[in-house]
Amino acid sequence: MQSLLLSLDLVGTFVFALSGATAGVKREMDLFGVLVLSFAAASAGGIARDVLIGAVPPAAVSDWRYLAVATLAGLITFFWYRPIENLRSPVQIFDAAGLALFAVAGTQKALAFHLHPAMAALLGMLTGIGGGMARDILCAQMPAVLRSELYAVAALAGAIVTVLGYLAGMQSVGVAIGLVLCFGLRLMAIFRGWRLPVARPH
Amino acid sequence: MQSLLLSLDLVGTFVFALSGATAGVKREMDLFGVLVLSFAAASAGGIARDVLIGAVPPAAVSDWRYLAVATLAGLITFFWYRPIENLRSPVQIFDAAGLALFAVAGTQKALAFHLHPAMAALLGMLTGIGGGMARDILCAQMPAVLRSELYAVAALAGAIVTVLGYLAGMQSVGVAIGLVLCFGLRLMAIFRGWRLPVARPH
Amino acid sequence: MQSLLLSLDLVGTFVFALSGATAGVKREMDLFGVLVLSFAAASAGGIARDVLIGAVPPAAVSDWRYLAVATLAGLITFFWYRPIENLRSPVQIFDAAGLALFAVAGTQKALAFHLHPAMAALLGMLTGIGGGMARDILCAQMPAVLRSELYAVAALAGAIVTVLGYLAGMQSVGVAIGLVLCFGLRLMAIFRGWRLPVARPH
Repeated sequence: MQSLLLSLDLVGTFVFALSGATAGVKREMDLFGVLVLSFAAASAGGIARDVLIGAVPPAAVSDWRYLAVATLAGLITFFWYRPIENLRSPVQIFDAAGLALFAVAGTQKALAFHLHPAMAALLGMLTGIGGGMARDILCAQMPAVLRSELYAVAALAGAIVTVLGYLAGMQSVGVAIGLVLCFGLRLMAIFRGWRLPVARPH
Repeated sequence: MQSLLLSLDLVGTFVFALSGATAGVKREMDLFGVLVLSFAAASAGGIARDVLIGAVPPAAVSDWRYLAVATLAGLITFFWYRPIENLRSPVQIFDAAGLALFAVAGTQKALAFHLHPAMAALLGMLTGIGGGMARDILCAQMPAVLRSELYAVAALAGAIVTVLGYLAGMQSVGVAIGLVLCFGLRLMAIFRGWRLPVARPH
Repeated sequence: MQSLLLSLDLVGTFVFALSGATAGVKREMDLFGVLVLSFAAASAGGIARDVLIGAVPPAAVSDWRYLAVATLAGLITFFWYRPIENLRSPVQIFDAAGLALFAVAGTQKALAFHLHPAMAALLGMLTGIGGGMARDILCAQMPAVLRSELYAVAALAGAIVTVLGYLAGMQSVGVAIGLVLCFGLRLMAIFRGWRLPVARPH
């Protein structure tokens, strides 16, 4: 079970690293910059969560496998950019899976550190979206999650269901529904264009 | 006394959240983005301070009321943007009060964690200005405090007076004068246009 | 020995602060903004490392001398910008020395906190490049290290050699070679234009 969770975590890391590396290649960074963006996109959310709950050094800093997986994704993207770019739609689906996994696992870790349930859900969401925000800030852009699609909301929904399951004493049920809900909302956003209302300043 | 301080802290949180939400609405973010900016503008300074002094989880992460107040401010701004925007001048005055409060309270917390007095003043200033800096970075803009008005300097002045009062064994006097000084400097900047000298590279 | 290390650390702080202050003056920030950029460029790398390994409060926050040295560099740059700007080449050489020192010292600190050797090298590199990244993000720009020259790679090379020396039980040899290697690679980048391969998205 423990090793299944680690495997899933590393799959999520790999897919998120692909998104970071792709952003770096598009901006014509050098090899190193691409690898930094890979690692940042894959790990920033979990690192922020761990620093905030006092779990230092964060898992992504103390366990070399996260770095190894992110670096591998960065190298593949750097040298085979065209094929990766053509995979956009499969990558988006993997990304949706990674988001669901990070949000749910991040929530569980925050609950294990005895945070208030509402804040545990928030930290679960941060685990899921933090990497993408770091990637965008490093590219000097406004984070995409602030403006588009059901991305953060999907993560938050999965995190909240995880918390509800925990409060109801049915942790596995909450985890299962949380994963499906987050993943499903993302697929709806990708393939059906579901969105949140947007602010109209004028 | 304790509950008075908490109330003042939540008022500051509310007003800072308004400034974050307003920035989000101006950039046509979706509802979620507006709420993230509300929470970031209200809490980033205090969170950074708490992480740096080792007080984890930070108050804004462990106590759900900060999130609730920031979310409320974000929702109000999202749905009633026009009236909030027309309140600009009152909001600026509340913001000056929030800055004074955050700077002084942040300094006291750093002193309570036995930091060097000079660094406690710095962390007090960071508590006051950190939220606005996070807001601007999330909007991919250079933080306004680096370039304009007596904002950070007002926070620093209030923080220094708080430290001096502490060193002189007259903590309440320092707090009172610090609050008035920071608030007053901001009012002078808003209504009289007081500024710092600006760099002239040419 | 201890005081030699501290002196070198403060020299690195001074030179990095010059680079931050110069960026601030170029963007016509006010005096305070220039000082913030000085301190951020000089300390962000070390602060990030210390937060990640759990060494809080970070050295740059608990020891006032870092702030004093960074502030001094900021004031000098603010009031004597022309002469500093004309020193560009000497400043770049000092900067290369600061980078080597920060990378090697950062690696040693991470090893002392029992991090995995690969991650200690990564944190050493972060110590060296973090300040410049914070400086660029505060200026709303993509960090220069992601796109140019042998900067981060030089830091990483120095950090890796430091780790190898540690693993081989020859710490001082590793430190010496690491310093020379990082410094030398930077000089080659500055005076010979050595670079990494750059991503070609098309």
